Amino acid sequence: MDIRTLKGFRDYLPKEALIRTHVIKQIYSVLVSYNFDLIDTPILEYSEFLLKKGGDEAERQTYRFKDNGDRDISMRFDLTVPFARFMATNRSKIKFPFRKSQLGKVFRGENTQRGRYREFMQFDFDIVGEDTFRSDAEILSVVYCGLEEIFLNFIQGINRKFVIHFSHIGILNAYIDKLGLKEQATFILRNIDKLGKIGIDSVRENLLSQLSEECVNFILNFISLEGTFWDKLETLRGVLGDNDSLKRIEDIFLHLSELGIQDAFNFNLKVVRGLDYYTGLVFEAEMMGINMGSICSGGRYDNLLSLFSSSLQKVSGVGGSFGIDRIQDIIELEKFNYIKLFVVKASSRVLIVNIDDSLQDYYYKLADKFRRHDYSKINNIACEVYPKSKDGKNIKVQIEYALDKSIRFLIFVGQDEYRENKLKVRDLTKKEELLLSFDEAIKFIKGNDKFLCTPF
Amino acid sequence: MDIRTLKGFRDYLPKEALIRTHVIKQIYSVLVSYNFDLIDTPILEYSEFLLKKGGDEAERQTYRFKDNGDRDISMRFDLTVPFARFMATNRSKIKFPFRKSQLGKVFRGENTQRGRYREFMQFDFDIVGEDTFRSDAEILSVVYCGLEEIFLNFIQGINRKFVIHFSHIGILNAYIDKLGLKEQATFILRNIDKLGKIGIDSVRENLLSQLSEECVNFILNFISLEGTFWDKLETLRGVLGDNDSLKRIEDIFLHLSELGIQDAFNFNLKVVRGLDYYTGLVFEAEMMGINMGSICSGGRYDNLLSLFSSSLQKVSGVGGSFGIDRIQDIIELEKFNYIKLFVVKASSRVLIVNIDDSLQDYYYKLADKFRRHDYSKINNIACEVYPKSKDGKNIKVQIEYALDKSIRFLIFVGQDEYRENKLKVRDLTKKEELLLSFDEAIKFIKGNDKFLCTPF
Repeated sequence: MDIRTLKGFRDYLPKEALIRTHVIKQIYSVLVSYNFDLIDTPILEYSEFLLKKGGDEAERQTYRFKDNGDRDISMRFDLTVPFARFMATNRSKIKFPFRKSQLGKVFRGENTQRGRYREFMQFDFDIVGEDTFRSDAEILSVVYCGLEEIFLNFIQGINRKFVIHFSHIGILNAYIDKLGLKEQATFILRNIDKLGKIGIDSVRENLLSQLSEECVNFILNFISLEGTFWDKLETLRGVLGDNDSLKRIEDIFLHLSELGIQDAFNFNLKVVRGLDYYTGLVFEAEMMGINMGSICSGGRYDNLLSLFSSSLQKVSGVGGSFGIDRIQDIIELEKFNYIKLFVVKASSRVLIVNIDDSLQDYYYKLADKFRRHDYSKINNIACEVYPKSKDGKNIKVQIEYALDKSIRFLIFVGQDEYRENKLKVRDLTKKEELLLSFDEAIKFIKGNDKFLCTPF
Repeated sequence: MDIRTLKGFRDYLPKEALIRTHVIKQIYSVLVSYNFDLIDTPILEYSEFLLKKGGDEAERQTYRFKDNGDRDISMRFDLTVPFARFMATNRSKIKFPFRKSQLGKVFRGENTQRGRYREFMQFDFDIVGEDTFRSDAEILSVVYCGLEEIFLNFIQGINRKFVIHFSHIGILNAYIDKLGLKEQATFILRNIDKLGKIGIDSVRENLLSQLSEECVNFILNFISLEGTFWDKLETLRGVLGDNDSLKRIEDIFLHLSELGIQDAFNFNLKVVRGLDYYTGLVFEAEMMGINMGSICSGGRYDNLLSLFSSSLQKVSGVGGSFGIDRIQDIIELEKFNYIKLFVVKASSRVLIVNIDDSLQDYYYKLADKFRRHDYSKINNIACEVYPKSKDGKNIKVQIEYALDKSIRFLIFVGQDEYRENKLKVRDLTKKEELLLSFDEAIKFIKGNDKFLCTPF
């Protein structure tokens, strides 16, 4: 019998789960530092709510079925629509501005490929009820800080950079208006959104099916603007004159510059996002040199929240979504040094080697002391005892076990050490072995371990 | 339109999500300290695997449907059966003893009541490939430490105690054998498992449908044994003679006594667990005085893992499962002091009050400094700026916002403070307001905040 997961679904073995846990933890710590509060919604909802936003694609990809009570229910395909439903259900309990985050699995029965799964995890974050350039810029700085934590601060040695492309949907729309193509606006935006997937030649061809060659050239030139941020802004002001969307983009960029993080951002009119509900800022972050698609994207939506409740009609939101699985895939693709480093650093923990069965009671009490020796959590040390072995006390097997599990420190206690109340401590990343008292061992392990026992 | 979740499913607002996050974090930190590694499996699996274990109840309660590719698929109803599938799929990549943990949502379309949802979260932990009393005892000490972290160390002021009932399925089986009732063993165990739900009178009645009154009395007396652990053991040795199961229970209890945590454990023959796959240790933890059912349960299984793979035929495991939602329900039921304490303590963060729009640039840079002032994560402070307000600078609204969000520290900077490079810092839990430099403010906030910005 071939015992397998469904296509597009996957198991996480310990090393993979540890990487995912770290990615989540980095993003979470950034969101917490910005005072975003976690919320959660169910994975299953009434289909009439989840599929209300319509769109054939969402409907086709959704896992939808009847439950035993004959209710028409669906598994969520993103965290955005459930969030709009959440806002309508809980409106009276929420004060604006509402800074929320949500982490969870979503499900789409689409074709699978690298970076595209049927079950995947998103980490969403939104500021609702504050329509200012400050909140737009704050969302972008969260994207920056999150990716910085993952790819720059935490995983050292990575030699790739991320870039955050951003634009304002109103700029391209103003130009389309100017060309007298208002009626074709949705058609144009939908096609431009496909640039990354199908390339410029195919997009040109598609556009030519409904527009004149002159218009297509105008549009493709417009979105291909080159130069610094300020060059682009000047050119666009020349074309569009004074314009609220340009002013908003300028203010956002100035805010990012005040924080000194503007270099990671690329003002890019090709970013339009495929989804109808964006009405202002739009953005997509990607790793340069890896063809994985966007790893964090989002924008401002003025009309999404009123989908379920007229009391939310005037409530604008801005937010984004980190694609946890794609970030993990990038980390796993880059299989050089830092992966190993990463796992070992994250797992500087202890194995008490079983070299004398008669000392088992002592071994387990010792493990307990390592774990609990200080009630301030930060000082505890992760520890286990290798069990009594049928093969006698095969030390080679025990060391292999430790290496496989990325355990860094081995403790040996035989009768001599036991009598002297000492521990032999071996650091598997060096050729070092020291004879230490318990307190010295704690100090030694803690001094060599940035992460201690708790990846979180 | 009534916009609601499905019955048995629920939204988590920020305060509820925060409590859940803390519960998870406490358990996770204990599991990490014991070197348990996280794994994960999909929420959707082939029905033939998930439902293989059979049982009408599981089958009736499972969300099962056909996907667009006409595959017969189901949502997992626990983490145990997917784990058996995981072991068969990934056997070659795993070294024993395998100490694993898994956190995730599971789904059961059963009747809802307090502590019983259709979507709920479990935190499982297992030691596979080590059939010793040490691993049994270690699982029990994880249960103890997890509940201790949640109910004793972290949430202070709780005046309830938890108790961990434990037994060995072999003891009752040996007695049933002795009574010559081997054929009725399953029937007897299934009924005893219902004691908590339906009470002793109904259980007696059910048993009488297949057993003589004498036998029923013998059995009900046997499982109602009173006294200390050692009294019970002596009585049972008198009835059963030398017995492997009694020896195992004795060794387990001695191990727990060595760690000094034996008082939380109650040797209780009424614990049998309803599930067929337990073959040794069985346990259930509950809060005394709250009728919520078990909050952590499990046991040893010898034959579960071979369900999908004959190579796992001789592999025994022992493990348990924390019921996150029930633990959360208990915390929310006890709505006195500690809930408030808990949330405020966990959220000692900062709001920069907007008292002068012309200082907005400064406010946002200040927030950035609070968040990032030290790259050692532990020192960062969670912070936000109240946005430019349409109502002018209504300070009352801003303070209400802070209180609602359990923000503890307010920062006021007007023109005077700006010129002097000072901050007015107000602690909302006291009547204190201080004029401080930035560095002094960091020190003050950190000194008053055990949890800093990161609940994790």
